Amino acid sequence: MTLPSQPILLTPGPLTTSERTRQAMLRDWGSWDGDFNQITARVRQQTLRIAHGEDSHECVPMQGSGTFSVEAAIGTLVPRNGHVLVPNNGAYCQRIAKICRALGRRHQTLDYPEDAQVKAADVDRALAADATITHVALVHCETGAGVLNPLHEIALVVAKHGRSLIIDAMSSFGAIDIDARQTPFDAVVAASGKCLEGVPGMGFVIIRRSVLEQCEGNSPSLALDLYDQWAYMNRTTQWRFTPPTHVVAALDQAIAQYVEEGGQEARGGRYASNCRALIEGMAALGFRTFLDPAIQAPIIVTFHAPDDPRYDFKTFYTEVKKRGYILYPGKLTQLETFRVGCIGHFGESGIPGAVAAIADALKVMGITQVSAKALA
Amino acid sequence: MTLPSQPILLTPGPLTTSERTRQAMLRDWGSWDGDFNQITARVRQQTLRIAHGEDSHECVPMQGSGTFSVEAAIGTLVPRNGHVLVPNNGAYCQRIAKICRALGRRHQTLDYPEDAQVKAADVDRALAADATITHVALVHCETGAGVLNPLHEIALVVAKHGRSLIIDAMSSFGAIDIDARQTPFDAVVAASGKCLEGVPGMGFVIIRRSVLEQCEGNSPSLALDLYDQWAYMNRTTQWRFTPPTHVVAALDQAIAQYVEEGGQEARGGRYASNCRALIEGMAALGFRTFLDPAIQAPIIVTFHAPDDPRYDFKTFYTEVKKRGYILYPGKLTQLETFRVGCIGHFGESGIPGAVAAIADALKVMGITQVSAKALA
Ligand SMILES: Cc1ncc(COP(=O)(O)O)c(C=O)c1O
Ligand SMILES: Cc1ncc(COP(=O)(O)O)c(C=O)c1O
Repeated sequence: MTLPSQPILLTPGPLTTSERTRQAMLRDWGSWDGDFNQITARVRQQTLRIAHGEDSHECVPMQGSGTFSVEAAIGTLVPRNGHVLVPNNGAYCQRIAKICRALGRRHQTLDYPEDAQVKAADVDRALAADATITHVALVHCETGAGVLNPLHEIALVVAKHGRSLIIDAMSSFGAIDIDARQTPFDAVVAASGKCLEGVPGMGFVIIRRSVLEQCEGNSPSLALDLYDQWAYMNRTTQWRFTPPTHVVAALDQAIAQYVEEGGQEARGGRYASNCRALIEGMAALGFRTFLDPAIQAPIIVTFHAPDDPRYDFKTFYTEVKKRGYILYPGKLTQLETFRVGCIGHFGESGIPGAVAAIADALKVMGITQVSAKALA
Repeated sequence: MTLPSQPILLTPGPLTTSERTRQAMLRDWGSWDGDFNQITARVRQQTLRIAHGEDSHECVPMQGSGTFSVEAAIGTLVPRNGHVLVPNNGAYCQRIAKICRALGRRHQTLDYPEDAQVKAADVDRALAADATITHVALVHCETGAGVLNPLHEIALVVAKHGRSLIIDAMSSFGAIDIDARQTPFDAVVAASGKCLEGVPGMGFVIIRRSVLEQCEGNSPSLALDLYDQWAYMNRTTQWRFTPPTHVVAALDQAIAQYVEEGGQEARGGRYASNCRALIEGMAALGFRTFLDPAIQAPIIVTFHAPDDPRYDFKTFYTEVKKRGYILYPGKLTQLETFRVGCIGHFGESGIPGAVAAIADALKVMGITQVSAKALA
């Protein structure tokens, strides 16, 4: 089969995967079979190792998209009389609040603007002020605008108050350091199709063993019960319900390449250099980033849309796509923006190529005024 | 990459898929991109067409395994004060009861032995006796033992009483006729990796439009809310949360091949002929089926284990696997059995090959007494 040439996805998952990762999907696996269950065991072990949680935590995989694993973590860890504090600086934080609402779990948000980091001191004050709060649910990299939140400081504060920390590390896991030996947390949620560069279709939650053991019966769902999934998997080596076998096999191959590349430091380093190249290249075209560089995660960058009446995102997207790159729309409520991801399996020419494609697209759209400020 | 030779999966999903279906996964898709959303639209349209529900129903796809879609259907369709009748003749019926319990939905079972069909007359009596029952949740093919339940008769009874019917057609959809124009139902649940011969990783629910429109706010879950998924998809053409893009693309290709083969009649015909060849071939070896042929679905067959002290399933499984075929363990509570699936992409030699492999396995295990009855 000849495939049409594939555009590079500059999106925060699904992203561009390697050919080797996709080829792992050319085989069917029996979900009851020992060969497949060894793959599952290896994926669990390797993701646990990435978080340095071998001694303290367990990895529980979960079918579905990343949100399914976030909901599973909230539903399994937070008891019916729990109370969740959600520091909120963007869309994925708000999604956690929405999950709490759907599950009937008491919660409150600690609100920030979309261009600000969550502050550990604010979490400290909120926990001191309300002893009924049992859990803090923190988004590590808020992919909405691209803000990196100060996980380590916040984790120390939550631990000091003796509360439980659940981290949504969907878009950071594997690229930004999360070390269970240094940073206290009860759960970290991530997924196959982000910085580990697998294909989308499953998530996983790394949970403190002593906490997980106490979670039986918490979940208001059968499918999303991480305790049940864990207990069954420990007993049988199998998933409770049909696993996405091809997605699991692809993640296993993707993790092998992650390790060969040099693990978190190498992966994070590559993304950071993509991010720098992107911001510099775009600045040369007149584009301004939405965020202060000090709080920018090297995962996805939000740019102000061109300040020109000839600009509209759809045409811009189409013109850039014609040139081989897929951009991402903005996710901000107030401002016209667009986003460019820094993650995925593409070579050093990927970012300069994308910047050139963007420059070309501006030209054919007749856009001369990219930034009011820059040209002022 | 050279792949090891692939065993044929005689399991009720994951199953053996075609090379063309697997090759559809060699490409990455942006989940926001129009090209991908056309694939989603086509899969929705085609599955709806298979159920002849174009005029009356909507197809809502859902991430995760089939169970996720069953739970989503119960959670979305059954309101908090609903009451579900679950005719129960096996493991997947019991799973629906377990889902109701987890979601806090009132329910009762109508119990049968594992080798009996659900009877429409019993459902009629149960509904007449209890006016508080709002929904009936029926498993079409009870994959646990392989029983085909009389869907059409039961559907007419449920409609007569003005109650709502939810069908778990996971292992029958696409192979056994379900026609929305003839058989009244509010929801049919199925998945990618069964008789449509896609890879596992997503399900879908075909829901009566007029019912779905009334389901806003029912779901006790964010991720598994079919109303929300539908409303968002109608507005944006996209999935609410990251879709398993490769699984969706593979299902699209699998459905194209399903249509080329001749649709439900051809697919069901092929499976029925597999099923006949299997039962005959196994009978020649002395194996007895657990079910009366009159209620056997052409999907998966349960056989009594050999009545010989040298038999154990693990060794048997391994010996058959060495010869290129993957069997499935029994799922009955009382009896020692094993199962052989009749579904998946394999040629006419598949079943005779499997029977020959089973004969060889018996020989190397030194098993001479397959059936006490047959040899009596
Ligand atoms: C921080 C964060 N949380 C949650 C999600 C949701 O993941 P999914 O779209 O796979 O459900 C994402 C997706 O990008 C994310 O970046
Ligand atoms: C009738 C029936 N219902 C539900 C399921 C559950 O599907 P899954 O294992 O994909 O969750 C199956 C799986 O074989 C089935 O046959």
